[in-house]
Amino acid sequence: MMKEKFKRVEGGVVAPQGFLASGVFCDIKRLGTGKGSQKGRKRDLALLVSEVPATVAGMFTTNQVCAAPVKVCVERVKQGVAQAIVVNSGNANACTGRQGMKDAREMTAVLAKRLHLPEQQVLVGSTGRIGVTMPMANVKSGILHALQMLGNQPAHAAEAAEAIMTSDTKPKQIAVEFTLGGQKVRIGGICKGAGMIQPGMSATGARPAALPHGGLHATMLCFLTTDAAIEARALQAALQEAVAQSFNRITVDGDMSTNDTVLVLANGLAGNAKWVGRASSRAGASTAPPRRVFQAALNYVCLELAKMIVRDGEGVHRVVTVRVNGARTIQEADAAARAVANSALVKTSWHGGDPNWGRIIDALGYSSATVVEEKVDIGYSAPDSRKVLWSLRRGQPTTASFRRLCAAVSPQEFELHINLNLGPADAVMYAADLTEAYVDFNKGDVNDPASLGG
Amino acid sequence: MMKEKFKRVEGGVVAPQGFLASGVFCDIKRLGTGKGSQKGRKRDLALLVSEVPATVAGMFTTNQVCAAPVKVCVERVKQGVAQAIVVNSGNANACTGRQGMKDAREMTAVLAKRLHLPEQQVLVGSTGRIGVTMPMANVKSGILHALQMLGNQPAHAAEAAEAIMTSDTKPKQIAVEFTLGGQKVRIGGICKGAGMIQPGMSATGARPAALPHGGLHATMLCFLTTDAAIEARALQAALQEAVAQSFNRITVDGDMSTNDTVLVLANGLAGNAKWVGRASSRAGASTAPPRRVFQAALNYVCLELAKMIVRDGEGVHRVVTVRVNGARTIQEADAAARAVANSALVKTSWHGGDPNWGRIIDALGYSSATVVEEKVDIGYSAPDSRKVLWSLRRGQPTTASFRRLCAAVSPQEFELHINLNLGPADAVMYAADLTEAYVDFNKGDVNDPASLGG
Repeated sequence: MMKEKFKRVEGGVVAPQGFLASGVFCDIKRLGTGKGSQKGRKRDLALLVSEVPATVAGMFTTNQVCAAPVKVCVERVKQGVAQAIVVNSGNANACTGRQGMKDAREMTAVLAKRLHLPEQQVLVGSTGRIGVTMPMANVKSGILHALQMLGNQPAHAAEAAEAIMTSDTKPKQIAVEFTLGGQKVRIGGICKGAGMIQPGMSATGARPAALPHGGLHATMLCFLTTDAAIEARALQAALQEAVAQSFNRITVDGDMSTNDTVLVLANGLAGNAKWVGRASSRAGASTAPPRRVFQAALNYVCLELAKMIVRDGEGVHRVVTVRVNGARTIQEADAAARAVANSALVKTSWHGGDPNWGRIIDALGYSSATVVEEKVDIGYSAPDSRKVLWSLRRGQPTTASFRRLCAAVSPQEFELHINLNLGPADAVMYAADLTEAYVDFNKGDVNDPASLGG
Repeated sequence: MMKEKFKRVEGGVVAPQGFLASGVFCDIKRLGTGKGSQKGRKRDLALLVSEVPATVAGMFTTNQVCAAPVKVCVERVKQGVAQAIVVNSGNANACTGRQGMKDAREMTAVLAKRLHLPEQQVLVGSTGRIGVTMPMANVKSGILHALQMLGNQPAHAAEAAEAIMTSDTKPKQIAVEFTLGGQKVRIGGICKGAGMIQPGMSATGARPAALPHGGLHATMLCFLTTDAAIEARALQAALQEAVAQSFNRITVDGDMSTNDTVLVLANGLAGNAKWVGRASSRAGASTAPPRRVFQAALNYVCLELAKMIVRDGEGVHRVVTVRVNGARTIQEADAAARAVANSALVKTSWHGGDPNWGRIIDALGYSSATVVEEKVDIGYSAPDSRKVLWSLRRGQPTTASFRRLCAAVSPQEFELHINLNLGPADAVMYAADLTEAYVDFNKGDVNDPASLGG
């Protein structure tokens, strides 16, 4: 596993050269002027613009019920070039039929016209309630306002990060700097999550056969910028690998959204030499260094952002990294990790600080992975530590005391180690506990329909 | 669908002729004499005995990690004859290795010896904590005490029903009477559930290929008695059909237990004429009436008991019958119903009395069922009513007001109707909401390890 460290820099999505961002309030939830409290008037529309045309890549929800903005992006990303993205929170524009498609396209058209771009080079993202058509008058005036506010200072990126939030309690952004063939290159990103989070994204929104059906499920949105020069196909391959080891490995509540989207724009202003073909972070004689370095940086950025989503998940108190080793196949390792990461009983035990290996082995046993009780190891460690305290070895309880096991699962973050001891395959899931706060938040308040998330 | 009504009678498992039951306290949780409050001293060991040898059939958890008593029963049920069952709560005897198998067999041996039966004709069931070996001294004295307490009065059946409870708030039992070929026949039953409830049982504990992997998951135990005369193979076929439409269609929290077990003893004392071959409740020219009547009665008993488990699930406030119609295949109908019935976001919305069809269609979309957004109907009705209030028709919100939709999902029990409009296949799931009380109960108290369920 690569352990490269990347230099963190300020500025989020505007850290790379040639990017502008903004975030404004345009009342997408239609709170009106009278009812709008300070809290209600959170920014809800963001723009992200490259000063020059950029190569683009995307990953999208594999939910069969997918939102209009996702459909628009899937088509447009195929051309490999884009220059601007408009994103709103407060309304997912999902299950909105033909009107929804018309509205998603109109959002891009309004922006394209003002920026003098082809409409096809403008992308769109939405998150919020399902089944309500977009308040287009508000959205259009929001886009015009956001255009006036565009800028390349850290504050602009922070406002964009805030504008895409829904139930998130804080904005999520990152930027890193590294060297590619002698040139300084940066990658920046913003994302949002909180609930309805177990993304399973693919490049086309179609399900690969290997994707674990039924085990996928929140709206997460992520927008990445880089000044690296990279061909569109290489960028898509790099994004696919980065998402596979980050956003597609997280779960808050096991529900995959209709809107999950990751987009990356690469405008080439860093002036590094381009490369072509599939990128890979796995070291090999034939892989060229710039490719590897870029992949590792993109992997790092995506994983850090993905972990921010889990930590800020609805009602989340504890974050648990579930590591399954020794499965017969990658698919079985994945199924075992997801069964544990999504078990209501395991998640409530994490909330209680209870090292309940009985519930863990129960979940393994009903997963579609092959499990032999007499071979299973279960243990706990601090994050990224190899010092594992085992509670079960080859199906037998160890002599570790209940107090010590409780201490191992009491920190706000810990790792759960499961070895099935049946084969070579591994999988990891970044998971969260299940708390009363999650239930309370999501039961909503039917007397305040605006509180009911999509 | 058959709508036979069966005459309810008193007496639970001792309602049929020739059955004896008892339930006693033998401190399986080892609370000791000092700490035992009245609540802690709940009965924890039950016996069920037929006065004559009975035919037997069983259905068992398909969890790959399965408890010792399940392994013992799977083997013994194959012979088709049994006469007594010993059941304990407080300890699941799961993940207890060789000692667990030895203890499970010893429980049957102690009972067999006193009843002068072959050990092979005594069965055993356990529920409670996972991973703790059985307190055999307590268990053995409990069995001896329970033998002294055996009787055929309703109070004896009620004590047995109480003894098998874990987190259940009330005992669950039923008995019905009907006529088979001129003879009065009775079926009685007791069961327990509460948490770790989404059974997926088969006759051998092995997974049929068609069983929805990854969608299965409580310990539920059910013990049925009947004085019908029926061959073992016909009894197994009848039980399989009855469980398929009842216990295998319920979910509380989506977790399938290591111990799920249904056993039925048929002692033939009613004196009806036996039949052979596969029973079926579906009307057809070639099916003999007694077979159909018995099947319908067994289906009814199992479904009523299964619904009691959902209603008394941990923290459950609302019970929802999820009906999926119009799926392409039975497997897809099942997958769609389970995705909705187990979605954390859908379950919390039920708790909130929120008719959130957005979360429902989202769950359908990520299920392994084929779903076309523009074809989906979603509606609500009172239990067993055909008067459905639709919120979504062919993917479009109806004009039903939010107030009316809220009213439809406000009763403690309601039905959710989903039509995928893609094919002929149907499925139903009996599901529950997800509440703060569920989380609070299951997070346990690490300062009181005895509170931590298996």
